[in-house]
Amino acid sequence: MNKPQITIKDIARALNVSPSTVSRALKNNPDISQETRDLIHAYAHEHNYKPNAQAVNLRAGRSNTIGVIVPQMVHHFFSCVLSGIEQASSEAGYNIIVAQSNESYEQEVKIVHSFLAARVCGVIASLAKETSHYEHYQELLENNIPIVFYDRICTGIKTERVVVDDYAGSFAAVEYMIQTGCKRIYFYGASPHLEITKNRRNGYLDAMKKYKIPVDDSMILLCDTRERAIAITPDLLESPERPDGFFAINDETAAGILYACKLVGLKVPDEVSICGFTNGVIAQSTDPKLTTVEQHGEEVGKSAFNILYEKLEGEEKSPNKIVRTNLVVRGTTK
Amino acid sequence: MNKPQITIKDIARALNVSPSTVSRALKNNPDISQETRDLIHAYAHEHNYKPNAQAVNLRAGRSNTIGVIVPQMVHHFFSCVLSGIEQASSEAGYNIIVAQSNESYEQEVKIVHSFLAARVCGVIASLAKETSHYEHYQELLENNIPIVFYDRICTGIKTERVVVDDYAGSFAAVEYMIQTGCKRIYFYGASPHLEITKNRRNGYLDAMKKYKIPVDDSMILLCDTRERAIAITPDLLESPERPDGFFAINDETAAGILYACKLVGLKVPDEVSICGFTNGVIAQSTDPKLTTVEQHGEEVGKSAFNILYEKLEGEEKSPNKIVRTNLVVRGTTK
Repeated sequence: MNKPQITIKDIARALNVSPSTVSRALKNNPDISQETRDLIHAYAHEHNYKPNAQAVNLRAGRSNTIGVIVPQMVHHFFSCVLSGIEQASSEAGYNIIVAQSNESYEQEVKIVHSFLAARVCGVIASLAKETSHYEHYQELLENNIPIVFYDRICTGIKTERVVVDDYAGSFAAVEYMIQTGCKRIYFYGASPHLEITKNRRNGYLDAMKKYKIPVDDSMILLCDTRERAIAITPDLLESPERPDGFFAINDETAAGILYACKLVGLKVPDEVSICGFTNGVIAQSTDPKLTTVEQHGEEVGKSAFNILYEKLEGEEKSPNKIVRTNLVVRGTTK
Repeated sequence: MNKPQITIKDIARALNVSPSTVSRALKNNPDISQETRDLIHAYAHEHNYKPNAQAVNLRAGRSNTIGVIVPQMVHHFFSCVLSGIEQASSEAGYNIIVAQSNESYEQEVKIVHSFLAARVCGVIASLAKETSHYEHYQELLENNIPIVFYDRICTGIKTERVVVDDYAGSFAAVEYMIQTGCKRIYFYGASPHLEITKNRRNGYLDAMKKYKIPVDDSMILLCDTRERAIAITPDLLESPERPDGFFAINDETAAGILYACKLVGLKVPDEVSICGFTNGVIAQSTDPKLTTVEQHGEEVGKSAFNILYEKLEGEEKSPNKIVRTNLVVRGTTK
């Protein structure tokens, strides 16, 4: 069904010249007569000849294709990152093969092997939540395929990385909540082994420490989805020592906390303050709108591509990049 | 920087055998002695040899890579479609090169040419809002590259397509609003030349007609973003013949209408009913939650891949596919 496109050999056969004549004519080599060049160009144009990018890259021993691993595609922040990578790579003339791990380690390993077989020239990746072994990424490096990690980075192997300033973002958010009157702020985080959880928790802990507010383990919880927030928050809100503030690792979780507050009849932000992390479409849609940390996903994606591009082009100047966050104050905080 | 991976020729040179011996040994051809086979397998394993997918595909005259065009990546429905395409293609052993048109005709043409150069074996696409010429897609067909359109389809050329049941989805939604008491329902649509706008508008018009409710041109507006909804809705709500219902072409616009109702102090759903189209994260985040038409984006993506796959594999049985919608009734309707 899918007939191959016309090749240099086809043109050579049709016009009864050698393939090398066709190749040189198409490059306007003056060794070939103007007449023959015109004839070959006309035939190539008429038959929709396109240089075969695969063949060109194969000769050069590399492709101009980058493999991109996204933990989940249906996710505002990752969509923004992917959009940033796509824009930057398209401008630079690179294609991107995109695959999602669906947070599965096994799927991530499979993707890396498919990228090796596709001979990608570089990889941009963010770890699946369950990934804690890195041999598959090591295998890419052993094949001289550079990797740039973004957001959920891998500290186990030596690669470039782009992170958002998780520590400063959460420090600023929690400090703002304390300054506007919160005294008992809970932290809802993702898997504790992820760097983003560690860094955001440290920002939270240091802000609490700065204002001499005691924190105990019961105030730090594993909760990174709307459903779980709705499941666990009402009991906390009805306990004697109820939270008067929540700092959540993403907007979806923050929206779940807001929903739970309404369920038990507590007013946001008068009685409970809530801050998320992302600043996606959810933050604009809740009532009141969410206070949140803007994560600049497109900038993360563009930076990741640019660092990889510099490595691929041999300009080894690229440092790791930290994308600054900023607090967007809306209606869920005082 | 990016050194080519080890090839059959490298192995042949290192072990002082011919490339064809290596090739046959790697395929466990019994013409090669067991000893030599073991030696070659051991060397290949040690040096991370991977068959070059590019070369294999080049020999077969085609790639196993599909080009996917998405109008916007940061968009719930398109993220879902992309996720569905990715899952189905990954299971079938195909890679996807993903590019976004950003709703630009010019960018869409550029993407099609980059897909031709990358020798994709097929294309899955949804039109940019501003696209109304289709020569670039015609060029793909002339190169025997099959196309499957999804959602924003192209009726100008003969290709397969996957659409959601826009007409039935909007008919059911508007009928529900009429049955729950709305008498003056406005339609907020996207560009009038898009098939999705035409079909959803027709569903709206036919539902109104069925219940003998008059519709005039002032009730059908071009409005498909939150910002525009917030800009144009308050005046309408304060006019003497104000709407008591809105059917919006996406959830983002519906959320903007809800915001506008709150601005002017009208109660939703008691005084104004609102229905969106998508059923993404926005619909869960508004207060009250949105009534909307579920669009089943992942199913659209999987169907688009499956139709393309059948064409590529020569099983020409694939019909066009209509993915059924269903109305999800929540808090913005009575």
